[in-house]
Amino acid sequence: MGASAAGASALLAESGPAAEAAPGTGSRGVVPFYGSHQAGIATPAQNYLQFGSFDVLGSSRANLKHLMHIWTDAAAHMSVGKGIGPVRTGNTPPVDTGEAVGLGPSKLTVTFGFGPSLFTSNGVDRFGLAKHRPAPLVDLPAFHGDALQADISGGDIGVQVCADDPQVAFHAMHDLIKQASGLATPKWLLAGFGRTGNTKRQVLPRNLMGFQDGNANIVAEDSSALNRIVWAGEPVSPAWMRGGSYLVARRIEISLELWDTTSLDGQQQTIGREKISGVVLPHVPPTSHIVLSSPSHNHGQRILRRGYSYVDGVDLASGFPAVGLMFLCYQKDPRAQFIKIQKRLSGADGVGDALSVYIRHIGSAVFACPPGASPGTFVGQQLIG
Amino acid sequence: MGASAAGASALLAESGPAAEAAPGTGSRGVVPFYGSHQAGIATPAQNYLQFGSFDVLGSSRANLKHLMHIWTDAAAHMSVGKGIGPVRTGNTPPVDTGEAVGLGPSKLTVTFGFGPSLFTSNGVDRFGLAKHRPAPLVDLPAFHGDALQADISGGDIGVQVCADDPQVAFHAMHDLIKQASGLATPKWLLAGFGRTGNTKRQVLPRNLMGFQDGNANIVAEDSSALNRIVWAGEPVSPAWMRGGSYLVARRIEISLELWDTTSLDGQQQTIGREKISGVVLPHVPPTSHIVLSSPSHNHGQRILRRGYSYVDGVDLASGFPAVGLMFLCYQKDPRAQFIKIQKRLSGADGVGDALSVYIRHIGSAVFACPPGASPGTFVGQQLIG
Repeated sequence: MGASAAGASALLAESGPAAEAAPGTGSRGVVPFYGSHQAGIATPAQNYLQFGSFDVLGSSRANLKHLMHIWTDAAAHMSVGKGIGPVRTGNTPPVDTGEAVGLGPSKLTVTFGFGPSLFTSNGVDRFGLAKHRPAPLVDLPAFHGDALQADISGGDIGVQVCADDPQVAFHAMHDLIKQASGLATPKWLLAGFGRTGNTKRQVLPRNLMGFQDGNANIVAEDSSALNRIVWAGEPVSPAWMRGGSYLVARRIEISLELWDTTSLDGQQQTIGREKISGVVLPHVPPTSHIVLSSPSHNHGQRILRRGYSYVDGVDLASGFPAVGLMFLCYQKDPRAQFIKIQKRLSGADGVGDALSVYIRHIGSAVFACPPGASPGTFVGQQLIG
Repeated sequence: MGASAAGASALLAESGPAAEAAPGTGSRGVVPFYGSHQAGIATPAQNYLQFGSFDVLGSSRANLKHLMHIWTDAAAHMSVGKGIGPVRTGNTPPVDTGEAVGLGPSKLTVTFGFGPSLFTSNGVDRFGLAKHRPAPLVDLPAFHGDALQADISGGDIGVQVCADDPQVAFHAMHDLIKQASGLATPKWLLAGFGRTGNTKRQVLPRNLMGFQDGNANIVAEDSSALNRIVWAGEPVSPAWMRGGSYLVARRIEISLELWDTTSLDGQQQTIGREKISGVVLPHVPPTSHIVLSSPSHNHGQRILRRGYSYVDGVDLASGFPAVGLMFLCYQKDPRAQFIKIQKRLSGADGVGDALSVYIRHIGSAVFACPPGASPGTFVGQQLIG
């Protein structure tokens, strides 16, 4: 399954960035795939998301290694606008499925993470990895108000694909799924748009509640904050996670019907900011979202947020669109960061986030994202190589 | 419900196109809403779709008229980048929900159409419109291979929203749904991207099967073809449809798993074109999609296609993404155009489209889209005013 990286490279030229990129779609922007950190974490957030959570089939360590090897090579190729292999294959199926031909790299990033179940699944150490499970990779505790659905939660390997073109993002997820055939199968997939701001260079986008998102976020340019808050290291994490990060993914449903019938004052008191300007209110209620989620109320803890809005047809009960936020956040230790913050927001300390009335956490997952790969290695090699 | 058009306009300035448009998202491009034809039909296809099909509540003609009045005003305002009303409302809910503030018009178009059930529903003439039902607005016949699902088919009023920014498109659909509260409720909603090409100025995009889509389509610049093929008129259609068009919408699921395991030769023989170049094969099989869908095999009949790809999570049966094409096509008479073409493709003449093996029609609707409105009138006024 899959040619070697060197062999595959020779075949990829034909599906490289074509001269024919459609105006207004795709772009030539490249985010380097290789590096000390995986791309897609401190990268300024691109416009589109495809998130996939996979279950690994069987318990073969060799298969798992092979999967991460071919996925790493595929991600490296797609990140520079190449296909995962030839399209022109004659009487055999195309290797690359071809729908991104001509669109350019579009700042594609592919970020891999390992879920708790890859280390221990129902008490079984499937891949001989249990002893390497990082202490920060805990199973998330139940939070007050959680309404988690098993079919859109968890997974052995999480794959976050981001790009500035939705077809480029879809193509990458599609071809990773195709490559994984017989090795891993997607448990859940979600497409997103309208990212949380995380760079100085972008005007803050708005979420589907109409408020700016990302005002107090860590920015990609602040390497000092990234080192303090995002990048994992010893002694808390094992050596194989040095330069990696922990991703907490929560699918958060928004009750648009309820929100839309709330007064502007009520909306602003809930968030703690003015809706149009994003300015913090002169008198911020103690239960507002920005107060309870702020570092000063969470022992100084912060997280790097990288969320995307999603839409999912109609919610027949309300007659409103079924929408929400795919909340993605990166940190060096979820125990001290996301979990502490979410406990406070969900009301464990007696006073819950006013926003809780309008949202429901319906999906949840956590992944240990290893450091980046260098050419000739694969993501996670320090763990499973 | 809803201020008058004049009254509303005065309140809209604050949510107009802000100076702060985020780079890379949104745009200042405007497609004129008013005109002899509705925008969004012969308009060069924008990058993103939100399609909503609504059921009208009750049987009040006055309510129906009111709905089309406020929807028309809302569409006109949003098409130039304004909100549907103020966001800064104090102790009442914002009129405009605000998530598109700052994004610009982004070439937004909103196109309305009336389904057969608006004229006669279960034999009942709810709105006194039965006698005005256009002869071309037939209930589509069952086609061989149809796998239609009632909950994603039909609807009294179809609303096609297109824009070059997905958040602008979503906002428009969201606020139309909000405005319709108590008058109409969405039956189904679908988001799309990666449109079928329909203009000389765009490089052809690819569908999720990796082939270019739109090679032989009518282009927006060809007004002669639009007059012959797309715009309705008397005597076939009633006077109220003069300058309108009929929309056939089919949700077509693609079996990616089967397609991805088909050889390139097989894929190309199925379509009739080379995958990368889009060039017609030297020897085109008689069952290829382009042969059976071509005018020469359909009594010269053509349609204006305006389709969008969609993705919808994971198909757990195959372990592949659940994807497809929201096939949208406009024409002056579906009886002579879409229905004839689809009969041939589905094999009514004994030889079916080779593509049928890989696709399934799972949703279906048809709408009579009236001509465009002029300021002070509403879409459909000639019918229900």
